[in-house]
Amino acid sequence: MSRDADDLAELKSRPEADEDLEDLALEEDYALNPDYVREVDDALDRGDAERLRELLNALRSEDIADLMGFLSADDREELLHHLDPEVLAEVLPELDTEIREDLVDLVEPAALARALGEMDSDDAADVVDDLEAGRRAQVLAAMPDIERAAIETALAYEEETAGRLMQREVVAAPQFWTVGQTIDHLRRESDELPELFFDVYVVDPSYHPVGACPVSHLLRSKRDIPLAQIMEPITDIPVDMDQEEVAYIFDKYNLISAPVVEPGGRLVGQITVDDIVGVIAEESEEDILALAGVSDAGRDAGVFGIVKSRLPWLLINTLTAAMAASVIRAFEGEIVKLAVLAVLMPIVASLGGNAGTQTLAVAVRALASRELSAVNAVRTVSREMTVGVLNGTALAAITGTILYFLFRDLRLSIAFGAALVINLFVASLAGALVPLALDRMGRDPAVSSSVFVTFVTDFTGFFAFLGLAALILL
Amino acid sequence: MSRDADDLAELKSRPEADEDLEDLALEEDYALNPDYVREVDDALDRGDAERLRELLNALRSEDIADLMGFLSADDREELLHHLDPEVLAEVLPELDTEIREDLVDLVEPAALARALGEMDSDDAADVVDDLEAGRRAQVLAAMPDIERAAIETALAYEEETAGRLMQREVVAAPQFWTVGQTIDHLRRESDELPELFFDVYVVDPSYHPVGACPVSHLLRSKRDIPLAQIMEPITDIPVDMDQEEVAYIFDKYNLISAPVVEPGGRLVGQITVDDIVGVIAEESEEDILALAGVSDAGRDAGVFGIVKSRLPWLLINTLTAAMAASVIRAFEGEIVKLAVLAVLMPIVASLGGNAGTQTLAVAVRALASRELSAVNAVRTVSREMTVGVLNGTALAAITGTILYFLFRDLRLSIAFGAALVINLFVASLAGALVPLALDRMGRDPAVSSSVFVTFVTDFTGFFAFLGLAALILL
Repeated sequence: MSRDADDLAELKSRPEADEDLEDLALEEDYALNPDYVREVDDALDRGDAERLRELLNALRSEDIADLMGFLSADDREELLHHLDPEVLAEVLPELDTEIREDLVDLVEPAALARALGEMDSDDAADVVDDLEAGRRAQVLAAMPDIERAAIETALAYEEETAGRLMQREVVAAPQFWTVGQTIDHLRRESDELPELFFDVYVVDPSYHPVGACPVSHLLRSKRDIPLAQIMEPITDIPVDMDQEEVAYIFDKYNLISAPVVEPGGRLVGQITVDDIVGVIAEESEEDILALAGVSDAGRDAGVFGIVKSRLPWLLINTLTAAMAASVIRAFEGEIVKLAVLAVLMPIVASLGGNAGTQTLAVAVRALASRELSAVNAVRTVSREMTVGVLNGTALAAITGTILYFLFRDLRLSIAFGAALVINLFVASLAGALVPLALDRMGRDPAVSSSVFVTFVTDFTGFFAFLGLAALILL
Repeated sequence: MSRDADDLAELKSRPEADEDLEDLALEEDYALNPDYVREVDDALDRGDAERLRELLNALRSEDIADLMGFLSADDREELLHHLDPEVLAEVLPELDTEIREDLVDLVEPAALARALGEMDSDDAADVVDDLEAGRRAQVLAAMPDIERAAIETALAYEEETAGRLMQREVVAAPQFWTVGQTIDHLRRESDELPELFFDVYVVDPSYHPVGACPVSHLLRSKRDIPLAQIMEPITDIPVDMDQEEVAYIFDKYNLISAPVVEPGGRLVGQITVDDIVGVIAEESEEDILALAGVSDAGRDAGVFGIVKSRLPWLLINTLTAAMAASVIRAFEGEIVKLAVLAVLMPIVASLGGNAGTQTLAVAVRALASRELSAVNAVRTVSREMTVGVLNGTALAAITGTILYFLFRDLRLSIAFGAALVINLFVASLAGALVPLALDRMGRDPAVSSSVFVTFVTDFTGFFAFLGLAALILL
């Protein structure tokens, strides 16, 4: 949102940005070129400040943030000292959180305070939030009162809410103004305005937003038209709304920006769609990782950080796997009599697990996009059960036939096929019901559901197959 | 992007939009209220056109599209006949593809042609693309030449490219114009402009974009300043760029809009960030489903459509599960001698599968966000291998101890623990290497990687545990 500041910094810091280097820096898909990263690495190792400056000059601040992620912690610290203060102010908001946490501790409080002053209030709050208490107090003390107050207000809102996401900088105009009055006001107050804005919010005397005028409409309307005549309906965002819901609303109604209001209805800030792009990417990442039973330790995490992020789920899975396997213990006698049962039982469990995962992924996605709700929950679950039986029957017919030709034992084929149908039915039921139940309980349907579904399908797979085999075969 | 058209339609079609109904229609999180859907359902069943009109009047077009998704195919067709042409033009672009495909066949060609004329070129092209060849010709023939040409041009670009995503409507101005000249031009040509725009692109004499002026900058700059002085650098999007890459660029550089250029460099359209929000949501959905081995059949799919979307992956999984299980066959003799092996072997396989899935999800996500590339591939893979060994060792220590107290057989604990370490090492290796290899081959790393990783961990789990048991125990 600070394209002006960008440009200014670019002009200052890139007096001789080398076009060849610019071409080399990024690959065709705008990812950083590995050769370029190696060149930076080499320049850092040699301590070649001049070459480093050349290399950095050819990068935008977002690319420098990206570059940081590919460097070792030591190189990153070294690189930090080569960044101009203006560039630093642009790079910090773009960094991965865990990298930023390390780096901000290395910047002088006064320099950091200056950099924070150049950021939008939402970005500055994010950076300050990463500081540990002692340094936070130091840095805030070094800031002008107004800027400090803005950051403290932002930090008072809970993480991942509209209050944190919004920028306090908005352009508002009273209902009775005309297009001409508004434009004159904007020209006069140019220095006080946000760098970039898309809507002028129309407010009533108690500062409640009642409409919005897109700037492109202001630009092309006649000067004497009142704002109230060209303004459009707005979708208010309550300041405590979860960011995932805000993203849903932006996506659904194709919003560019929306006013954020406090409980009384007063305008306190705005959220723009470019902030939402980051939220959507973040939330869907979280779903992918949660379904796989892993939290993201970050690309820069050390080995122990990663172990810590994965071991808890593996331990839970050990427990559920042991519980499912305990079913097999009850059938040890049958397995000793007919060892092929031990060969076939993992196939029944595995297919159930797969079918359950399929249903689960579809349900989690549908819940996230509000395509699955109380309206169609019953219909969806019963459709899934039918699909489970049909897929189970199809697989049972195919595998049962192959088994018959391998073992010439019709009863074995029947036990295997029937167990498949049962397990795929249960898999579909669990795959749909577990996320629905979690959602109803106000929990994230992506978290912990796959462990539970896999336990159910393993348990059912072993029990149905070995139990049927014991009944029919032995 | 057609907020004006929205409003116009709202004014026309919602003369007496009932505020109570509006409050009832949506839940607090802006999802449709189940009770409201039931009311619509009832009104449709009773054929109560007046009540239906009331109910629809309280909804925005995006909510009507949402509502369609919750209705049966018959009710949807019935509802279609109650929509005004203007509302239809807004609802169609918001519908799920499979629902739209069904509905567009029910609209008269002339009415559809009129609706298409009210849409942005990208939306209109999407709708036309859903028509089967015969009807497509009919509908296009019923359109004015210019609109038809715009749609045909859009359809000439491949699906999921920048060319499809862009709208042809752009605002461009020559380099030598001043702010004042540009604003006067916008006022004069108001009727020809896109409904909403965020940047005026500055072009050279051969219509190559050389910069962009955000409208908020135009609004507040002095009239005599030349555009060249306040314009900002742009990021050109080639017309054939994949939409996933376009989304990456918008996210990385926080873009609001970007000019789209043909191979020669001429400006042919623009992409705006609100289109990108949809793309990001779509691409991450695809990743979640691909990792679970399922393609989305759509929320309205029939039972057979769903079976068709899932059975292929289940069949592939049957094959890989059978291949992994065939390892067990080689050890039937050992299992008969020591049946507890059959109880413990699925635990080794399951934990390997989980660890592999964890690594896989992290790698797929990192590849998608370009955090994992050739620069750090070697470092990432070796880090994963270390994590695998550490997690394996931790699990082996815990489970080995528990097993010892259960069975008082140190050799069994050692075989189980060693197999766990081996399998978690292999799981981490496969979980990182498989998506990297697919990505290097230009394939989607989310598709088919989990089937492969699960096969590797099942196979290794069975082989390592039973093989070690045979060596040590028997």
